[in-house]
Amino acid sequence: MKKIDVCLSPELLHLHNTTNSIVVVTDIFRATSCMVTGFAYGVKSIHPVETVEECKALQDRGYIGAAERNAQKVEGFELDNSPFSYMDDRLVGTSVAMTTTNGTRSITMAKPNAVKVIVGAFLNLEAVVNCLKNQPYDVLVLCAGWKGKVNLEDTLFAGAVVNALRDEFHVAEDGAMMAYELYDKAKDNLLGFLATSSHIRRLQRLGIQKDITYCLQKNLYDVVPVLRGNELVAM
Amino acid sequence: MKKIDVCLSPELLHLHNTTNSIVVVTDIFRATSCMVTGFAYGVKSIHPVETVEECKALQDRGYIGAAERNAQKVEGFELDNSPFSYMDDRLVGTSVAMTTTNGTRSITMAKPNAVKVIVGAFLNLEAVVNCLKNQPYDVLVLCAGWKGKVNLEDTLFAGAVVNALRDEFHVAEDGAMMAYELYDKAKDNLLGFLATSSHIRRLQRLGIQKDITYCLQKNLYDVVPVLRGNELVAM
Repeated sequence: MKKIDVCLSPELLHLHNTTNSIVVVTDIFRATSCMVTGFAYGVKSIHPVETVEECKALQDRGYIGAAERNAQKVEGFELDNSPFSYMDDRLVGTSVAMTTTNGTRSITMAKPNAVKVIVGAFLNLEAVVNCLKNQPYDVLVLCAGWKGKVNLEDTLFAGAVVNALRDEFHVAEDGAMMAYELYDKAKDNLLGFLATSSHIRRLQRLGIQKDITYCLQKNLYDVVPVLRGNELVAM
Repeated sequence: MKKIDVCLSPELLHLHNTTNSIVVVTDIFRATSCMVTGFAYGVKSIHPVETVEECKALQDRGYIGAAERNAQKVEGFELDNSPFSYMDDRLVGTSVAMTTTNGTRSITMAKPNAVKVIVGAFLNLEAVVNCLKNQPYDVLVLCAGWKGKVNLEDTLFAGAVVNALRDEFHVAEDGAMMAYELYDKAKDNLLGFLATSSHIRRLQRLGIQKDITYCLQKNLYDVVPVLRGNELVAM
């Protein structure tokens, strides 16, 4: 039986053997929600990089540059980290270079060992789940967290994946059980459950309540971004 | 207002600033449950060490040696890692040297920076809570986990502490919220909630169901072990 596990922080990724696993990276607020939205609106590819410098270098080579640090846009780049910024006709067919505080780092960390790295968000939950059902590998959901610490929203997404797969996959470890139990408690009111979480408070101070509401919607899009070489493309 | 936070694994401890915090180390199955039981039954001190070699050296110097790896007693030592082994008149007034897979390492990791390191288990939950209420510092509950990974039982204990302190302390971070929410879901039936957890299955294979049931009892003892120098003593 295939296994599903959850890694609650990239700081714990080294404890997981992913050589037989598809890794689903999630950063609900807001990197992976942006990525999914971008592909749904016609972006051709997204190149995730760890540093602002790498992102600038790619922008100089013709990529659309998207750089976020501490939940805010870095000066000198074209795109911020709001999913609404990706609903833009000018992005259709373009290549985006993206760096964020947590999400893009998790993708580059997962890449060396995993069978495949895909990108998940509530926005494409069902598409991710169907993709995972129709393949022979184990699954690890990697929560991007916040600067190494665990966070609620990514854990809830991981729990939603466990919930959808638990009849067909073996839920092997406590990380996956914790995520599932939290999702089971929160599923009927994700926004209410998250109301006092640290990241929601951080984002609310920045006045982006509409991003929060948007990122918690399920199954808006069918697209599953997958890493091919150094770039994410639509599967 | 004082803050309370939870660190779900010793691998994440470096992300927490504990210079103004009392750290409560917990390893429910079974290191900290053993320690609390030992002090309740008259042990004078417990010297936690990271390696089996250090434990052996202390045993050679007259300590009672207790060494566990992978939930089993290491050959050549006097005590195993069952709390029932600490209910022994021969231990009254003695000094124990202890090394375990997870719990003792967490104590030695927490020591350099924290204001104070104390030991918590369900067995002394209320005593720990009262101790934390009557002091001016922030609180970090450090879950020992399993070889760096998170586990359910330590997280539930952390959630029980958050639950008891949340009116008087600021619950600042998502780690603490996750622990609280899980405890809130599990509190009426800890054993049932844990029935499928990885460590319960590991321990059940070893035939120590009675240890599990015992370690989930609340408030059997009033003692709070505290680290003074290199040794735990009763506060």
